[in-house]
Amino acid sequence: MARWEPDARERLVRAAVDLFSEQGYDNTTVVQIAERAGLTKSTFFRHFPDKREVLSAGQEIFSGLLADGIATAPDSATPLEAVAAALDSVATAMAPQRRDFAPKLTAVVAASPELRERNALKRARLAEVMADALQQRGVPDPTAILAAELGVLAFDRGFDRWIEPANQRPFAEVAREVLAELHAAATALR
Amino acid sequence: MARWEPDARERLVRAAVDLFSEQGYDNTTVVQIAERAGLTKSTFFRHFPDKREVLSAGQEIFSGLLADGIATAPDSATPLEAVAAALDSVATAMAPQRRDFAPKLTAVVAASPELRERNALKRARLAEVMADALQQRGVPDPTAILAAELGVLAFDRGFDRWIEPANQRPFAEVAREVLAELHAAATALR
Repeated sequence: MARWEPDARERLVRAAVDLFSEQGYDNTTVVQIAERAGLTKSTFFRHFPDKREVLSAGQEIFSGLLADGIATAPDSATPLEAVAAALDSVATAMAPQRRDFAPKLTAVVAASPELRERNALKRARLAEVMADALQQRGVPDPTAILAAELGVLAFDRGFDRWIEPANQRPFAEVAREVLAELHAAATALR
Repeated sequence: MARWEPDARERLVRAAVDLFSEQGYDNTTVVQIAERAGLTKSTFFRHFPDKREVLSAGQEIFSGLLADGIATAPDSATPLEAVAAALDSVATAMAPQRRDFAPKLTAVVAASPELRERNALKRARLAEVMADALQQRGVPDPTAILAAELGVLAFDRGFDRWIEPANQRPFAEVAREVLAELHAAATALR
Protein backbone atom coordinates (compact mmCIF):
# COMPACT_ATOMS: atom_id res chain seq x y z
CA MET A 1 0.00 0.00 0.00
CA ALA A 2 1.40 3.36 -1.02
CA ARG A 3 1.34 5.91 1.76
CA TRP A 4 1.04 9.56 0.95
CA GLU A 5 4.35 11.19 1.79
CA PRO A 6 4.25 14.96 2.19
CA ASP A 7 7.09 16.62 0.28
CA ALA A 8 8.46 13.23 -0.80
CA ARG A 9 9.70 14.68 -4.05
CA GLU A 10 11.53 17.56 -2.43
CA ARG A 11 13.03 15.25 0.21
CA LEU A 12 14.30 12.89 -2.49
CA VAL A 13 15.94 15.73 -4.39
CA ARG A 14 17.68 17.02 -1.27
CA ALA A 15 18.82 13.55 -0.23
CA ALA A 16 20.17 12.89 -3.74
CA VAL A 17 22.11 16.14 -3.89
CA ASP A 18 23.55 15.55 -0.40
CA LEU A 19 24.69 12.03 -1.34
CA PHE A 20 26.03 13.02 -4.78
CA SER A 21 27.93 15.80 -3.05
CA GLU A 22 29.33 13.54 -0.29
CA GLN A 23 30.23 10.41 -2.22
CA GLY A 24 29.92 11.25 -5.93
CA TYR A 25 27.13 10.75 -8.43
CA ASP A 26 28.42 7.44 -9.78
CA ASN A 27 28.76 5.89 -6.33
CA THR A 28 25.22 6.73 -5.22
CA THR A 29 22.31 4.30 -5.66
CA VAL A 30 18.57 4.85 -5.72
CA VAL A 31 18.27 2.72 -2.55
CA GLN A 32 20.69 5.03 -0.72
CA ILE A 33 18.77 8.10 -1.85
CA ALA A 34 15.46 6.68 -0.67
CA GLU A 35 17.00 5.63 2.68
CA ARG A 36 18.52 9.05 3.28
CA ALA A 37 15.14 10.64 2.55
CA GLY A 38 13.44 8.21 4.96
CA LEU A 39 11.38 6.75 2.09
CA THR A 40 11.17 3.47 0.21
CA LYS A 41 12.66 2.62 -3.17
CA SER A 42 9.16 2.29 -4.60
CA THR A 43 8.31 5.81 -3.44
CA PHE A 44 11.43 6.95 -5.30
CA PHE A 45 10.24 5.27 -8.48
CA ARG A 46 6.79 6.82 -8.19
CA HIS A 47 8.50 10.20 -8.50
CA PHE A 48 11.50 9.59 -10.78
CA PRO A 49 12.44 7.00 -13.42
CA ASP A 50 16.13 6.97 -12.36
CA LYS A 51 18.69 8.84 -10.28
CA ARG A 52 19.68 11.13 -13.10
CA GLU A 53 16.15 12.49 -13.40
CA VAL A 54 16.15 13.59 -9.76
CA LEU A 55 18.30 16.53 -10.76
CA SER A 56 16.80 17.41 -14.10
CA ALA A 57 13.15 17.19 -13.04
CA GLY A 58 13.32 20.83 -11.95
CA GLN A 59 14.15 21.87 -15.48
CA GLU A 60 10.91 20.35 -16.79
CA ILE A 61 9.06 22.58 -14.35
CA PHE A 62 11.06 25.58 -15.56
CA SER A 63 10.21 24.75 -19.20
CA GLY A 64 6.51 24.71 -18.42
CA LEU A 65 6.60 27.97 -16.49
CA LEU A 66 8.63 29.77 -19.17
CA ALA A 67 6.24 28.65 -21.92
CA ASP A 68 3.21 29.64 -19.81
CA GLY A 69 4.62 33.09 -19.17
CA ILE A 70 5.01 33.69 -22.90
CA ALA A 71 1.61 32.21 -23.80
CA THR A 72 -0.26 34.31 -21.25
CA ALA A 73 1.54 37.62 -21.88
CA PRO A 74 -0.84 40.35 -23.18
CA ASP A 75 -1.43 40.37 -26.95
CA SER A 76 0.23 43.78 -27.05
CA ALA A 77 3.49 42.47 -25.54
CA THR A 78 6.58 42.67 -27.76
CA PRO A 79 8.76 39.54 -28.08
CA LEU A 80 11.12 40.92 -25.42
CA GLU A 81 8.23 41.77 -23.09
CA ALA A 82 6.90 38.23 -23.54
CA VAL A 83 10.34 36.86 -22.58
CA ALA A 84 10.33 39.12 -19.50
CA ALA A 85 6.91 37.68 -18.63
CA ALA A 86 8.43 34.18 -18.94
CA LEU A 87 11.12 35.16 -16.41
CA ASP A 88 8.44 36.49 -14.03
CA SER A 89 6.57 33.21 -14.45
CA VAL A 90 9.58 30.99 -13.72
CA ALA A 91 10.39 33.18 -10.71
CA THR A 92 7.47 31.54 -8.90
CA ALA A 93 9.63 28.40 -8.68
CA MET A 94 12.60 30.29 -7.21
CA ALA A 95 11.81 30.02 -3.51
CA PRO A 96 14.44 31.02 -0.91
CA GLN A 97 15.08 27.36 -0.01
CA ARG A 98 15.98 26.66 -3.65
CA ARG A 99 18.43 29.53 -3.51
CA ASP A 100 20.24 28.14 -0.45
CA PHE A 101 20.34 24.74 -2.07
CA ALA A 102 21.55 25.85 -5.51
CA PRO A 103 25.34 26.13 -4.96
CA LYS A 104 25.55 22.48 -3.85
CA LEU A 105 23.45 21.35 -6.81
CA THR A 106 25.60 23.38 -9.23
CA ALA A 107 28.77 21.77 -7.82
CA VAL A 108 27.29 18.26 -8.18
CA VAL A 109 26.39 18.84 -11.83
CA ALA A 110 29.79 20.38 -12.58
CA ALA A 111 31.55 17.30 -11.15
CA SER A 112 29.79 14.74 -13.38
CA PRO A 113 30.27 14.58 -17.16
CA GLU A 114 26.97 12.69 -17.45
CA LEU A 115 25.07 15.37 -15.53
CA ARG A 116 26.76 18.17 -17.45
CA GLU A 117 25.61 16.61 -20.72
CA ARG A 118 22.08 16.15 -19.48
CA ASN A 119 22.11 19.74 -18.28
CA ALA A 120 23.25 21.05 -21.67
CA LEU A 121 20.40 19.19 -23.36
CA LYS A 122 17.83 20.53 -20.91
CA ARG A 123 19.15 24.05 -21.47
CA ALA A 124 18.67 23.58 -25.22
CA ARG A 125 15.12 22.44 -24.47
CA LEU A 126 14.40 25.67 -22.56
CA ALA A 127 15.41 27.69 -25.63
CA GLU A 128 13.28 25.50 -27.93
CA VAL A 129 10.25 25.73 -25.69
CA MET A 130 10.47 29.52 -25.51
CA ALA A 131 11.06 29.87 -29.26
CA ASP A 132 8.00 27.67 -29.93
CA ALA A 133 5.84 29.72 -27.55
CA LEU A 134 6.98 32.94 -29.25
CA GLN A 135 6.25 31.53 -32.70
CA GLN A 136 2.77 30.60 -31.54
CA ARG A 137 2.28 34.30 -30.76
CA GLY A 138 3.20 35.05 -34.36
CA VAL A 139 6.78 36.17 -33.73
CA PRO A 140 8.69 35.35 -36.93
CA ASP A 141 11.91 33.37 -37.26
CA PRO A 142 14.75 34.32 -36.52
CA THR A 143 13.40 36.90 -34.04
CA ALA A 144 11.73 34.14 -32.01
CA ILE A 145 14.95 32.09 -31.87
CA LEU A 146 16.97 35.10 -30.86
CA ALA A 147 14.54 36.36 -28.22
CA ALA A 148 14.42 32.81 -26.78
CA GLU A 149 18.25 32.69 -26.61
CA LEU A 150 18.25 36.00 -24.77
CA GLY A 151 15.66 34.53 -22.41
CA VAL A 152 17.79 31.46 -21.65
CA LEU A 153 20.89 33.61 -21.14
CA ALA A 154 18.91 35.89 -18.79
CA PHE A 155 17.61 32.81 -16.96
CA ASP A 156 21.08 31.24 -16.55
CA ARG A 157 22.97 34.39 -15.74
CA GLY A 158 20.12 35.73 -13.62
CA PHE A 159 20.18 32.48 -11.64
CA ASP A 160 23.93 32.78 -11.02
CA ARG A 161 23.50 36.38 -9.86
CA TRP A 162 20.47 35.50 -7.72
CA ILE A 163 22.34 32.79 -5.77
CA GLU A 164 25.32 35.03 -4.99
CA PRO A 165 25.64 35.19 -1.19
CA ALA A 166 25.36 38.99 -1.11
CA ASN A 167 22.21 39.12 -3.25
CA GLN A 168 19.02 40.23 -1.50
CA ARG A 169 16.79 40.79 -4.51
CA PRO A 170 14.15 38.39 -5.85
CA PHE A 171 14.88 36.28 -8.94
CA ALA A 172 12.47 38.11 -11.26
CA GLU A 173 14.13 41.46 -10.60
CA VAL A 174 17.64 40.09 -11.15
CA ALA A 175 16.70 38.16 -14.30
CA ARG A 176 14.93 41.18 -15.81
CA GLU A 177 18.03 43.26 -15.11
CA VAL A 178 20.18 40.72 -17.00
CA LEU A 179 17.66 40.66 -19.85
CA ALA A 180 17.85 44.46 -20.15
CA GLU A 181 21.68 44.28 -20.25
CA LEU A 182 21.56 41.62 -22.96
CA HIS A 183 19.06 43.63 -24.96
CA ALA A 184 21.27 46.73 -24.76
CA ALA A 185 24.24 44.65 -25.94
CA ALA A 186 22.14 43.14 -28.76
CA THR A 187 20.97 46.47 -30.15
CA ALA A 188 24.51 47.89 -29.95
CA LEU A 189 26.18 44.84 -31.55
CA ARG A 190 28.38 45.69 -34.53
CA MET B 1 53.45 -3.24 -35.67
CA ALA B 2 51.25 -0.26 -36.40
CA ARG B 3 50.85 0.36 -40.11
CA TRP B 4 50.19 3.85 -41.37
CA GLU B 5 46.62 3.88 -42.67
CA PRO B 6 45.77 6.71 -45.01
CA ASP B 7 42.48 8.35 -44.08
CA ALA B 8 41.95 5.87 -41.23
CA ARG B 9 40.15 8.47 -39.16
CA GLU B 10 37.76 9.44 -41.94
CA ARG B 11 37.11 5.77 -42.79
CA LEU B 12 36.29 5.00 -39.16
CA VAL B 13 33.85 7.89 -38.96
CA ARG B 14 32.07 6.79 -42.13
CA ALA B 15 31.95 3.14 -41.04
CA ALA B 16 30.56 4.17 -37.65
CA VAL B 17 27.84 6.37 -39.11
CA ASP B 18 26.86 3.64 -41.60
CA LEU B 19 26.61 1.03 -38.84
CA PHE B 20 24.80 3.33 -36.38
CA SER B 21 22.38 4.14 -39.17
CA GLU B 22 21.82 0.49 -40.16
CA GLN B 23 21.62 -1.22 -36.77
CA GLY B 24 21.43 1.53 -34.15
CA TYR B 25 24.07 3.21 -32.01
CA ASP B 26 23.57 0.95 -28.97
CA ASN B 27 23.91 -2.25 -31.02
CA THR B 28 27.18 -1.26 -32.68
CA THR B 29 30.57 -2.22 -31.23
CA VAL B 30 34.03 -0.78 -31.79
CA VAL B 31 35.10 -4.12 -33.32
CA GLN B 32 32.30 -3.88 -35.91
CA ILE B 33 33.28 -0.30 -36.78
CA ALA B 34 36.93 -1.25 -37.24
CA GLU B 35 35.97 -4.28 -39.37
CA ARG B 36 33.66 -2.27 -41.60
CA ALA B 37 36.44 0.28 -42.11
CA GLY B 38 38.89 -2.53 -42.95
CA LEU B 39 41.04 -1.63 -39.95
CA THR B 40 41.95 -3.20 -36.62
CA LYS B 41 40.51 -2.46 -33.20
CA SER B 42 43.85 -1.04 -32.09
CA THR B 43 43.83 1.36 -35.03
CA PHE B 44 40.40 2.48 -33.85
CA PHE B 45 41.74 3.18 -30.37
CA ARG B 46 44.69 5.14 -31.74
CA HIS B 47 42.13 7.58 -33.15
CA PHE B 48 39.23 7.56 -30.66
CA PRO B 49 38.80 6.66 -26.98
CA ASP B 50 35.34 5.12 -27.54
CA LYS B 51 32.54 4.83 -30.10
CA ARG B 52 30.78 7.95 -28.89
CA GLU B 53 33.82 10.11 -29.65
CA VAL B 54 33.80 9.01 -33.29
CA LEU B 55 30.90 11.36 -33.86
CA SER B 56 31.87 14.26 -31.64
CA ALA B 57 35.52 14.44 -32.71
CA GLY B 58 34.49 16.74 -35.56
CA GLN B 59 33.15 19.25 -33.09
CA GLU B 60 36.57 19.57 -31.43
CA ILE B 61 37.97 20.51 -34.82
CA PHE B 62 35.18 23.06 -35.27
CA SER B 63 35.93 24.59 -31.84
CA GLY B 64 39.57 25.06 -32.75
CA LEU B 65 38.79 26.62 -36.12
CA LEU B 66 36.17 28.99 -34.69
CA ALA B 67 38.55 30.18 -31.96
CA ASP B 68 41.38 30.60 -34.50
CA GLY B 69 39.18 32.67 -36.78
CA ILE B 70 38.39 35.06 -33.94
CA ALA B 71 41.96 35.23 -32.65
CA THR B 72 43.44 36.00 -36.07
CA ALA B 73 40.81 38.54 -37.20
CA PRO B 74 42.31 42.03 -37.76
CA ASP B 75 42.59 44.24 -34.67
CA SER B 76 40.11 46.61 -36.29
CA ALA B 77 37.41 43.92 -36.59
CA THR B 78 34.21 44.51 -34.61
CA PRO B 79 32.89 41.60 -32.48
CA LEU B 80 30.48 40.66 -35.27
CA GLU B 81 33.22 40.83 -37.91
CA ALA B 82 35.37 38.58 -35.72
CA VAL B 83 32.47 36.09 -35.52
CA ALA B 84 32.13 36.24 -39.32
CA ALA B 85 35.87 35.48 -39.55
CA ALA B 86 35.26 32.46 -37.28
CA LEU B 87 32.61 31.20 -39.73
CA ASP B 88 35.05 31.66 -42.63
CA SER B 89 37.65 29.74 -40.66
CA VAL B 90 35.35 26.79 -39.83
CA ALA B 91 34.24 26.71 -43.47
CA THR B 92 37.62 25.18 -44.34
CA ALA B 93 36.35 21.97 -42.66
CA MET B 94 33.11 21.94 -44.69
CA ALA B 95 34.23 19.93 -47.70
CA PRO B 96 31.66 18.65 -50.23
CA GLN B 97 32.05 15.05 -48.96
CA ARG B 98 31.07 16.23 -45.47
CA ARG B 99 28.00 17.83 -46.93
CA ASP B 100 26.83 14.61 -48.60
CA PHE B 101 27.48 12.73 -45.41
CA ALA B 102 25.76 15.16 -43.02
CA PRO B 103 22.09 14.12 -43.33
CA LYS B 104 22.89 10.53 -42.27
CA LEU B 105 25.00 11.77 -39.35
CA THR B 106 22.22 14.15 -38.26
CA ALA B 107 19.68 11.29 -38.32
CA VAL B 108 21.97 9.04 -36.24
CA VAL B 109 22.42 11.73 -33.55
CA ALA B 110 18.69 12.49 -33.50
CA ALA B 111 17.89 8.80 -32.89
CA SER B 112 20.09 8.41 -29.78
CA PRO B 113 19.37 10.21 -26.50
CA GLU B 114 23.01 9.68 -25.49
CA LEU B 115 24.31 11.27 -28.68
CA ARG B 116 21.81 14.13 -28.45
CA GLU B 117 23.07 14.95 -24.97
CA ARG B 118 26.69 14.80 -26.03
CA ASN B 119 25.82 17.04 -28.97
CA ALA B 120 24.13 19.63 -26.77
CA LEU B 121 27.21 19.79 -24.55
CA LYS B 122 29.52 20.18 -27.54
CA ARG B 123 27.33 22.97 -28.86
CA ALA B 124 27.61 24.75 -25.50
CA ARG B 125 31.39 24.34 -25.79
CA LEU B 126 31.40 26.08 -29.19
CA ALA B 127 29.68 29.09 -27.62
CA GLU B 128 32.12 29.13 -24.68
CA VAL B 129 35.16 28.87 -26.92
CA MET B 130 33.97 31.76 -29.10
CA ALA B 131 33.05 33.92 -26.10
CA ASP B 132 36.51 33.29 -24.58
CA ALA B 133 38.24 34.19 -27.85
CA LEU B 134 36.20 37.41 -28.07
CA GLN B 135 36.99 38.33 -24.47
CA GLN B 136 40.68 37.84 -25.21
CA ARG B 137 40.27 40.51 -27.91
CA GLY B 138 38.93 42.84 -25.21
CA VAL B 139 35.22 42.46 -26.08
CA PRO B 140 33.35 43.06 -22.80
CA ASP B 141 30.72 40.83 -21.22
CA PRO B 142 27.80 40.48 -22.12
CA THR B 143 28.63 41.55 -25.70
CA ALA B 144 31.11 38.67 -26.04
CA ILE B 145 28.53 36.12 -24.80
CA LEU B 146 25.88 37.47 -27.12
CA ALA B 147 28.12 37.66 -30.21
CA ALA B 148 29.24 34.07 -29.50
CA GLU B 149 25.59 32.91 -29.29
CA LEU B 150 24.88 34.57 -32.63
CA GLY B 151 27.93 32.77 -33.98
CA VAL B 152 26.72 29.36 -32.81
CA LEU B 153 23.22 30.03 -34.16
CA ALA B 154 24.74 31.08 -37.52
CA PHE B 155 26.91 27.96 -37.48
CA ASP B 156 23.99 25.59 -36.72
CA ARG B 157 21.42 27.21 -38.96
CA GLY B 158 24.00 27.85 -41.67
CA PHE B 159 24.92 24.17 -41.57
CA ASP B 160 21.27 23.12 -41.96
CA ARG B 161 20.86 25.48 -44.89
CA TRP B 162 24.17 24.39 -46.45
CA ILE B 163 23.21 20.68 -46.47
CA GLU B 164 19.82 21.30 -48.11
CA PRO B 165 19.76 19.28 -51.37
CA ALA B 166 19.06 22.35 -53.50
CA ASN B 167 21.90 24.42 -52.03
CA GLN B 168 24.83 25.18 -54.36
CA ARG B 169 26.60 27.84 -52.29
CA PRO B 170 29.68 27.30 -50.09
CA PHE B 171 29.27 27.08 -46.31
CA ALA B 172 30.96 30.43 -45.53
CA GLU B 173 28.54 32.33 -47.76
CA VAL B 174 25.47 30.64 -46.29
CA ALA B 175 26.64 31.03 -42.68
CA ARG B 176 27.47 34.72 -43.18
CA GLU B 177 24.00 35.24 -44.65
CA VAL B 178 22.42 33.67 -41.53
CA LEU B 179 24.66 35.80 -39.29
CA ALA B 180 23.48 38.96 -41.09
CA GLU B 181 19.82 37.89 -40.61
CA LEU B 182 20.41 37.26 -36.92
CA HIS B 183 22.16 40.60 -36.53
CA ALA B 184 19.26 42.41 -38.20
CA ALA B 185 16.83 40.63 -35.85
CA ALA B 186 19.02 41.48 -32.83
CA THR B 187 19.20 45.19 -33.57
CA ALA B 188 15.44 45.33 -34.23
CA LEU B 189 14.48 43.34 -31.12
CA ARG B 190 11.91 45.07 -28.93
